[in-house]
Amino acid sequence: MSWFAWGDPARARALDPGLRDLVSQVLRAPLADLPPVPEERVELAPSRLDERLRGLLAGVVGPGHVDDGDAARLRRSGGKSTPDLLLRRAGRADPAPDAVLYPADHDQVQRVLEVCSAERVAVVPFGGGTSVVGGVAPLRGGLRAVVCLDLRRLDRLVSVDTASMTAVLGAGVRTPRAEALLAEHGCTLGHLPQSYEYASVGGYAATRSSGQASSGYGRFEDMVVSLRAATPRGTLDTGGPPASAAGPDLGRLLLGSEGTLGVITEVGLRIRRRPEHVLDEAWSFPDFATGVDALRVLAQSGIRPTMARVLDEAETFVGAAVGGREAAPGCQAVLGFEGTGAEVDVRAAAAREAMAGAGGTPLGPEPVAHWRDNRFSAPYLRDSLLSAGVLAETLETAAPWSGLLPLYAAVSGALTGALEGEEGGAVVMCHVSHTYPTGASLYFTVVTAAGAAPLERWGRAKRAASEAIAANGGTITHHHAVGTDHLPWMAAEIGPLGGEVLRAVKAALDPVGVLNPGKLIPAP
Amino acid sequence: MSWFAWGDPARARALDPGLRDLVSQVLRAPLADLPPVPEERVELAPSRLDERLRGLLAGVVGPGHVDDGDAARLRRSGGKSTPDLLLRRAGRADPAPDAVLYPADHDQVQRVLEVCSAERVAVVPFGGGTSVVGGVAPLRGGLRAVVCLDLRRLDRLVSVDTASMTAVLGAGVRTPRAEALLAEHGCTLGHLPQSYEYASVGGYAATRSSGQASSGYGRFEDMVVSLRAATPRGTLDTGGPPASAAGPDLGRLLLGSEGTLGVITEVGLRIRRRPEHVLDEAWSFPDFATGVDALRVLAQSGIRPTMARVLDEAETFVGAAVGGREAAPGCQAVLGFEGTGAEVDVRAAAAREAMAGAGGTPLGPEPVAHWRDNRFSAPYLRDSLLSAGVLAETLETAAPWSGLLPLYAAVSGALTGALEGEEGGAVVMCHVSHTYPTGASLYFTVVTAAGAAPLERWGRAKRAASEAIAANGGTITHHHAVGTDHLPWMAAEIGPLGGEVLRAVKAALDPVGVLNPGKLIPAP
Repeated sequence: MSWFAWGDPARARALDPGLRDLVSQVLRAPLADLPPVPEERVELAPSRLDERLRGLLAGVVGPGHVDDGDAARLRRSGGKSTPDLLLRRAGRADPAPDAVLYPADHDQVQRVLEVCSAERVAVVPFGGGTSVVGGVAPLRGGLRAVVCLDLRRLDRLVSVDTASMTAVLGAGVRTPRAEALLAEHGCTLGHLPQSYEYASVGGYAATRSSGQASSGYGRFEDMVVSLRAATPRGTLDTGGPPASAAGPDLGRLLLGSEGTLGVITEVGLRIRRRPEHVLDEAWSFPDFATGVDALRVLAQSGIRPTMARVLDEAETFVGAAVGGREAAPGCQAVLGFEGTGAEVDVRAAAAREAMAGAGGTPLGPEPVAHWRDNRFSAPYLRDSLLSAGVLAETLETAAPWSGLLPLYAAVSGALTGALEGEEGGAVVMCHVSHTYPTGASLYFTVVTAAGAAPLERWGRAKRAASEAIAANGGTITHHHAVGTDHLPWMAAEIGPLGGEVLRAVKAALDPVGVLNPGKLIPAP
Repeated sequence: MSWFAWGDPARARALDPGLRDLVSQVLRAPLADLPPVPEERVELAPSRLDERLRGLLAGVVGPGHVDDGDAARLRRSGGKSTPDLLLRRAGRADPAPDAVLYPADHDQVQRVLEVCSAERVAVVPFGGGTSVVGGVAPLRGGLRAVVCLDLRRLDRLVSVDTASMTAVLGAGVRTPRAEALLAEHGCTLGHLPQSYEYASVGGYAATRSSGQASSGYGRFEDMVVSLRAATPRGTLDTGGPPASAAGPDLGRLLLGSEGTLGVITEVGLRIRRRPEHVLDEAWSFPDFATGVDALRVLAQSGIRPTMARVLDEAETFVGAAVGGREAAPGCQAVLGFEGTGAEVDVRAAAAREAMAGAGGTPLGPEPVAHWRDNRFSAPYLRDSLLSAGVLAETLETAAPWSGLLPLYAAVSGALTGALEGEEGGAVVMCHVSHTYPTGASLYFTVVTAAGAAPLERWGRAKRAASEAIAANGGTITHHHAVGTDHLPWMAAEIGPLGGEVLRAVKAALDPVGVLNPGKLIPAP
């Protein structure tokens, strides 16, 4: 993975000049190139790992699996938010972890945590490194040093049970590998977030991820049937039976814990038969409100699509323009159905009736094919824009259906208002990509000129949006998690007593506070 | 509710003499009547509530809502397990709470907890009082006194949002009232456990209840979208948006907390449109294994029934015999479908194909109609049996599909083995009533002669079954919860670190330990 951009450096490309001119016009701003500094110009603070500590850690994971070289440290110095990339492009990679560790298995993770607790060294678990909320920022939290715990060697299919349709995967397994391992058994996970190519199953569990087919396959947390986590106080195993009333579900404490309560090392997951048949259909609606309501009807019906999305007017227009196509007027919705042929036919027919009844016009499968082909490539476009001096960033929330459109208006307005000014304007787009019977997510994409101080500029917009979310009944994050970036909003989200509960659990499992300091858990 | 039996005293009836003779024959034991002592012969220890404490509590809930009379105390002295009823029938109602409080709302509950924490008085939340695991046993936990917090006045539909299909109900609302309140909006909850007529929505949340239509409507915890709880440290509000990645879902800590971490006062729930159409079908299978496998296929298919049950050979035979009918040979399964007419037709047709393909023979709707008519009346039959000297008790577990039949064999064998001897034998029956894609529940019913020492006799059987469950990958409880009865098995179920987590949360929310002492949370 590139150290200053999203993914595979070979897939990076410069922004098409025509698109660049269009963007400049729309944003009413001149654009100034923002190229990354050369890697050799990035200065890292020297590693705090002394020989003794290095020896202790090497004693656990093996000397070949402790790396305190600059290349490894730089590549674990943060995640993939636009502010993360802006900082690294400018040659700022501070803090960087003092070393990167590559444990082989659960027991090594467990022993690393014990050593780090005894030695007061912070530990940042690292899966795919795709956090866009500061979740892998290597903060020391006042401790002696900080190490990055890269879980890539925990990459096994531990077990599979095709009668129960479950599988246990190592936390470091990335999604394409998970799918390949499960395909050998005719199965699939069906979890397809935009970070699909890089993110790991442990990371999905730790952040309560949700994928593009969540309407059918469910959120990641709902696929989890068991978890194994290492903590400074020992191993925590949760789950197993399909359901239980033996007290609160403690696995739900690990789901969303972002490495602050334990390091998830194994994830037991519900799996499915690979679908025999996939059917896509795009629909057009006169406006976003009508399209959203159509998705509500579907989500509350007994027979639901596997995937359901609706784009607002701006995202419909821009999406088509970027793809060199012309959008139908209004808003585009996208449905997908997976299953046996008969199942898909039944569900698609029921959905068709509901969509038409809600004011939709069918557009056929073609627009969906284009989206499927490009659905993991948006972060590469962000890189191209960044290099050309254009910020592109996303934020997301969720609310009950009854509050969704007011929340949409409030957040759109806050973003536009915060970015409108002497440095030009912004394009604010939104789509609904995760629907539930009781509500839905809103996913905003903002494009604006970087301006003279891009970090501060985006910071203002993010704060305005977060305030609008909190004031309008939204959650501060639907599937990006909390990390450092949403931490200021957590106290309001969970209340003072919620914070006390998290701190109490943290103190029980991680008394020294080595686990991912500075993330998720609000201070008293 | 009767003080020594299940429900409405007017519905009690003596065991049919023919049935009694049959039971005696099958159990190979003479039966000795076990009538309850008259209520005036039950001796309660004097209330520990002194005038000052009574005044403090009356100051919160009003003097008319503190009752330390014997009738009220006796009726809150325990739940409805067979051991509970055996004790009260014998005139043993110790411990009884020192008083029963009837708070009017959340704020009064909150203030009661503050007073009780300051005064070191234990608080046992009480909804319908239907616990069969000792969940409402009024234990003092070494404190000065114990009060029962009867939540029946928290009986409002707080709000309803038909766009989001959610409703907030007071914790004390019992299911028939919840359904009546929601029916005014054309909606239903669809939660139908055997305790339906008495249990409250707060109790369902606190115990992770599951109803007979859980295949379609889901477990109660999966219907919960928000919770409000009073704790000695203040109010905890959780949930609201349909989904979130803002840290662990703290509502999941309250679900299954059994009153030990807080008193749930309001429950926000997903609701549904009342079904237009209900279709039932019974099926016959040559044996339990074949029937279970058919239900597995259905649970893992994309188009599922609303209700799915399969009875083993013994329960199929006994169920028919008790109803005065003759069962088809083998095992009976029962499916139910709810929804719009078209939806039901589609799902029933798909299920029919799967059931026939799995070796089933259709029996039509008639056997299901009989079951529907009688599905809440089994506890009354238990009372009739008890009066005639016959113990009837149930226990339940769940496991992945791959382990379900071995668990079934182990628990059946353990129960039979523990009860076989000089005092006769036992009839051990089982059904699967809750199916999931990854596994299912097992619900055992045991009928045996009371013998000379019925409590000890059942205690031996329960221990043997629990050991078999723990040794065979089952959970100690699928939907009855933990209470006092399953507490000895909790340490094994959640591990030592799981116990530490629960104790840490308990200490944060209830530092004095007033909330439902002696339940759920294993000692260090």
